[in-house]
Amino acid sequence: MAVTLAQLAKHLGAELRGDADIRVSGVGTLEHAGPGELTFLSQSRLRKHLPNTRAAVVLLRQVDAQDCPVACLVMDDPYLGYARASALIFPEPEAQPGIHPSAVVDDSAQIHPDVSVGPLCVVGAACVLEQGVELLAGCILERDCRVGAGSRLGPRVTLCHGTHLGKRVRIHGGAVLGADGFGFAPDAERRWVKIPQLGRVVVGDDVEIGANTTIDRGALEDTVIGEGAKLDNLVMVAHNVRIGAHTAIAGCVGIAGSTRIGSHCAIGGGAGIIGHLDIADGVTITAMTFVTRSIREPGVYASGVPHAPVREWNRSLARLRRLDRPVRREGSGEQED
Amino acid sequence: MAVTLAQLAKHLGAELRGDADIRVSGVGTLEHAGPGELTFLSQSRLRKHLPNTRAAVVLLRQVDAQDCPVACLVMDDPYLGYARASALIFPEPEAQPGIHPSAVVDDSAQIHPDVSVGPLCVVGAACVLEQGVELLAGCILERDCRVGAGSRLGPRVTLCHGTHLGKRVRIHGGAVLGADGFGFAPDAERRWVKIPQLGRVVVGDDVEIGANTTIDRGALEDTVIGEGAKLDNLVMVAHNVRIGAHTAIAGCVGIAGSTRIGSHCAIGGGAGIIGHLDIADGVTITAMTFVTRSIREPGVYASGVPHAPVREWNRSLARLRRLDRPVRREGSGEQED
Amino acid sequence: MAVTLAQLAKHLGAELRGDADIRVSGVGTLEHAGPGELTFLSQSRLRKHLPNTRAAVVLLRQVDAQDCPVACLVMDDPYLGYARASALIFPEPEAQPGIHPSAVVDDSAQIHPDVSVGPLCVVGAACVLEQGVELLAGCILERDCRVGAGSRLGPRVTLCHGTHLGKRVRIHGGAVLGADGFGFAPDAERRWVKIPQLGRVVVGDDVEIGANTTIDRGALEDTVIGEGAKLDNLVMVAHNVRIGAHTAIAGCVGIAGSTRIGSHCAIGGGAGIIGHLDIADGVTITAMTFVTRSIREPGVYASGVPHAPVREWNRSLARLRRLDRPVRREGSGEQED
Repeated sequence: MAVTLAQLAKHLGAELRGDADIRVSGVGTLEHAGPGELTFLSQSRLRKHLPNTRAAVVLLRQVDAQDCPVACLVMDDPYLGYARASALIFPEPEAQPGIHPSAVVDDSAQIHPDVSVGPLCVVGAACVLEQGVELLAGCILERDCRVGAGSRLGPRVTLCHGTHLGKRVRIHGGAVLGADGFGFAPDAERRWVKIPQLGRVVVGDDVEIGANTTIDRGALEDTVIGEGAKLDNLVMVAHNVRIGAHTAIAGCVGIAGSTRIGSHCAIGGGAGIIGHLDIADGVTITAMTFVTRSIREPGVYASGVPHAPVREWNRSLARLRRLDRPVRREGSGEQED
Repeated sequence: MAVTLAQLAKHLGAELRGDADIRVSGVGTLEHAGPGELTFLSQSRLRKHLPNTRAAVVLLRQVDAQDCPVACLVMDDPYLGYARASALIFPEPEAQPGIHPSAVVDDSAQIHPDVSVGPLCVVGAACVLEQGVELLAGCILERDCRVGAGSRLGPRVTLCHGTHLGKRVRIHGGAVLGADGFGFAPDAERRWVKIPQLGRVVVGDDVEIGANTTIDRGALEDTVIGEGAKLDNLVMVAHNVRIGAHTAIAGCVGIAGSTRIGSHCAIGGGAGIIGHLDIADGVTITAMTFVTRSIREPGVYASGVPHAPVREWNRSLARLRRLDRPVRREGSGEQED
Repeated sequence: MAVTLAQLAKHLGAELRGDADIRVSGVGTLEHAGPGELTFLSQSRLRKHLPNTRAAVVLLRQVDAQDCPVACLVMDDPYLGYARASALIFPEPEAQPGIHPSAVVDDSAQIHPDVSVGPLCVVGAACVLEQGVELLAGCILERDCRVGAGSRLGPRVTLCHGTHLGKRVRIHGGAVLGADGFGFAPDAERRWVKIPQLGRVVVGDDVEIGANTTIDRGALEDTVIGEGAKLDNLVMVAHNVRIGAHTAIAGCVGIAGSTRIGSHCAIGGGAGIIGHLDIADGVTITAMTFVTRSIREPGVYASGVPHAPVREWNRSLARLRRLDRPVRREGSGEQED
């Protein structure tokens, strides 16, 4: 969709420097955007590309405006501006309402007329799909699921029985919400006896959940994802976990059972969090960190070990393994390596 | 389903203290259970909630019985008791036998009359589904699969050709069993030449496998999951791995090719185990541990590094990186930080 | 398929020692192969089984030929030879061309007559499937996907709109290519505003991708998997990542956004690589390593910490945590443990 710089300036609340009638219909990087395209400058390491940009307009901060060879839109947060401008230029295609004839929909499901159910979906008994819901191909909703208005489920999303989604939730392909939690009690012969998993998964408004992520149903109470939380791909959320509002969780994170994570947290990729912890609001956990105790104070926490050339790393490891020996040897001049 | 305390006492082999005619039809936590609900006390950190519980009956140990304000069922292992009581109160809904008209079933498949095949399932040539098997919506079974009596496959489970499941196996949504293992030989130009993956996946009785977990077929011999083993979500089991009976593996664990894991092991979330190892029976591996050598003795093994505030962690890292310098410098009084 | 040793010698360019008319129709390990079966010896730790092998023929190096009690095929790389011999004996079953009546195929899709579309597949508008493509059951291709000649998609593979695959690509069950990348900008109230994800996933020829792996579409430019690359199961490739030709990535690896990985790299299982890095050609990253900086030189890099008995590990940890104290204490003779 083509928009004028005047429209953009108004939409973004930005100051326009340049011709208000220029139209843009695409976006690109500062380095590669061409005529008719919008771009942005938010990271200082990319500033070197500004003098040579061929874009039609650059979203940038006031401090960078003087070096911009083309029209610019001045704002405090050009990356946020880019998010909004890009969504204006590339609106999501509107789904055609209707139920594909190949879908299998239970008679007791309540489906708003303005809902799109894609091919080969299954919608179980007593499900409720509110206005504007879109199920892409191959979604499976077991009985008693509710999907709030404007939510969009990517291909092959599975909602197990009783899952509740808020409004404007977006779930990507292959995610599974509401599978049984991992709960077993050992019997006298050390065989595992299953604990029935009786809770649900409840997801707040404006949540986004990545491809092939799994969120287990609660054992007794519900697993809860707070409004505005964003989960990346291949994230594992165990039973009874509660994730606070507007918390972002990157790919491959695992969160064990009954842990509560506050709001406005950020959890880096590959991190692991053990069960039954409390993580305060505003905590940042860096990638590949192992969280083993509750965190009461906002701040940044880490335990990821950066790579090194393997010989160097092996020497560090050799010494690390010897650290439990008496301290005196450390200063004795004796060669250990 | 409502059951009396008399029935529960008999079912659990527990000593009842209280009115045998009280009926319970629900369960809850010690803190939140109300009238008509059963609860349990197994962890000492929750004992503080016992005096105020409003539950109808509490499963607990003898030592806690005197502080219980309501009826109680006394037993050695209240958590195990809870597992059994809860399964009595909430029996799994029985599937309606039959093949959904939208399922695609090969004529050569042998399907017991008492089997439920859900909508949009695919059952390939020469598959065998024994009595009481339930396939939920969207399962795909390639040719020559066998599913033992009483097994239940969640939505969108995939069994690739030749996969064999024992009895009472339970697999959760999106799991993939029997995809090709990751086997390639480099040629003279360092291109990867695929090794045909000719083995199968063979799963014992009473195994449970989590959502979106993947278990690859063997390269030459089979990948084997022993009876009673429990695998959580997003676990990766590579080709030729053998997992012993009653071993439990938490979420996000990766096990590389040809490793053998004993019986009654417990592997914490996010752990990684390299290939061609032997892990003895009765080994516990804590979360986020990296197993690099065979383990011959039962016991607990670890290498996960607990989180710290990032400044503190960075200081530890800075020193760790310098540990390969000559030992004498450590005691020289020279400041390195 | 039965082949003679003469045929094998010619196919592999190997020197045959033994009866050229012997036929083999199966394969097995050096320890377990029997009459009529082919095996190979490539690892010295398995040489002990050579004198007792009952195989019909052994692929091995010249140095091992004298100890072989049966026919052998002498070559420099017996493992590569095994890959090729095994593929000759066990050719992939040829798919029957045709579109299963239960598949949902858009009228605008261009499908070569020699293509197999399995049951319950969905092929969207304007998709192109070239000669010899095979879609197994339950695949979903959104609009505008292209699948190159000879490619094979396992059950329930999902290609989101615009995904392009080269020739002879093989994707295993449950993989999701082209879901939205994880891109959000915080607004003034620290809510996440979605960045539209406008790029595609582009996969080169001869790539193999494992079960339940996810590869996100680019934000602005494309996510690119170079020709001949091999990705194992449950790998997470974020938006804008570029993976070079013939690079192998083991299970459970996570690669964050915009990182570029060179060609002929090898990345061990469970490794994590942060975003916006450049990894040179020919880099090996060992399992469970955390890559935090760009790597400019080929070589082997590591940071995985091997397991230890938990008491030993706890002592190492206790000391590691104290390493930020003044250096002088290390040599003071003071006991810290």
